[in-house]
Amino acid sequence: MPKALIFDVFGTVVDWRGSITREVRTLAERKGIRLNAGKFANEWRSGYQPAMDRVRRGDLPWLNIDALHRLILSELSAKYQLNQLSEKEMDALNRVWHRLKPWPDSVRGLKKLKQTYTVSTLSNGNFSLLNNMAKHSQLPWDCIISAELFGHYKPDPETYLGAAKLLDLEPGQVMLCAAHKDDLLAAKACGLKTAFIKRPREFPPSVNLDLSFDKRFDFNAESIVDLADQLSSG
Amino acid sequence: MPKALIFDVFGTVVDWRGSITREVRTLAERKGIRLNAGKFANEWRSGYQPAMDRVRRGDLPWLNIDALHRLILSELSAKYQLNQLSEKEMDALNRVWHRLKPWPDSVRGLKKLKQTYTVSTLSNGNFSLLNNMAKHSQLPWDCIISAELFGHYKPDPETYLGAAKLLDLEPGQVMLCAAHKDDLLAAKACGLKTAFIKRPREFPPSVNLDLSFDKRFDFNAESIVDLADQLSSG
Repeated sequence: MPKALIFDVFGTVVDWRGSITREVRTLAERKGIRLNAGKFANEWRSGYQPAMDRVRRGDLPWLNIDALHRLILSELSAKYQLNQLSEKEMDALNRVWHRLKPWPDSVRGLKKLKQTYTVSTLSNGNFSLLNNMAKHSQLPWDCIISAELFGHYKPDPETYLGAAKLLDLEPGQVMLCAAHKDDLLAAKACGLKTAFIKRPREFPPSVNLDLSFDKRFDFNAESIVDLADQLSSG
Repeated sequence: MPKALIFDVFGTVVDWRGSITREVRTLAERKGIRLNAGKFANEWRSGYQPAMDRVRRGDLPWLNIDALHRLILSELSAKYQLNQLSEKEMDALNRVWHRLKPWPDSVRGLKKLKQTYTVSTLSNGNFSLLNNMAKHSQLPWDCIISAELFGHYKPDPETYLGAAKLLDLEPGQVMLCAAHKDDLLAAKACGLKTAFIKRPREFPPSVNLDLSFDKRFDFNAESIVDLADQLSSG
């Protein structure tokens, strides 16, 4: 059994799509801007992986996720008529990522797991973003571990192995819990245990997600509460 | 007012002297070893500053506090007849630093402060030590910040400024809370706010401690609960 559970956050613990859609819709109405808030949220999120890849390849220096989100937001602003916002308003909008709402089971599931295990983030989100989000939504982390601490983004091995080392555990004593199979497979390749958490509503229905349970992972769960139940009966 | 409160841990939040004395006394009785447990605890702690200084000067490579504690324990073991313990028993004894008990007001005070501020460690203790201690004693940290994350020990400025940077705050938005004036003065020199917390029982009565309240600090408090009261009325 693992001693520490480390969680992917965007999509696995919090609902970025719903949170951003709601907040941008409200902002647009207040400002009289016409935009498709759901499409905007998806496009903002889509810029994230390519932006991290630019850092990973060395085309960009190390930039944290706040900076990458801000870069993508600037690139999208003309298309969505957000360029009428001031720099200060754009900065405030960028902080929406600090205010993402948890899935309905997340807080309860983490509280249950915390009774037995160390529960931590292992997210590409920067440390302050993860800390602010936890304060905002009462996510009961024991500690915050961010890719920022290692100067590497997931799925670089430095992140998974770095988390185990910080916790002074062997990789096999640490389990990554995530809704994304590529993240889990990279952790597994480093020797970590893995738990797949199904999040069918992370992306819009038009996206063809692989939500199948998968024997390559140690656990497959319908939610964080379900994972806690499986672990306590296991 | 500060946005985040970062705490020195050994002596400020937890009672290293009482915890170690009790645990070593029990171990010695079980093993039939005659030793002065209180004196041993003080001497173990006394080795800590010189050991960190050796790292700071470059005489030793970066070693975390677990490793430094283990080094000092080995050096003391003959004098206290602990060299009859196996390596495994010595390793287990070294972990007593992960099990230090909080002062009676610590958990209540931190819980109260957590309602308004980010509360974090800023300790020379390594990340896993601080995490294990928090789990063991229900210390309700929002996040764990350790000198280990910066490869520098307090009072190096990299630790105070590194904590502010991780939290994405200006130094003046962060307050170091500590029972040790040298730690506070180093943080103040970096622009942090400071709160002195009086801990008259950290050292034995024979040690002549400067416990006087001091105008150089933003707050002077009798306990963490007192600090919370002062902040909420201030």
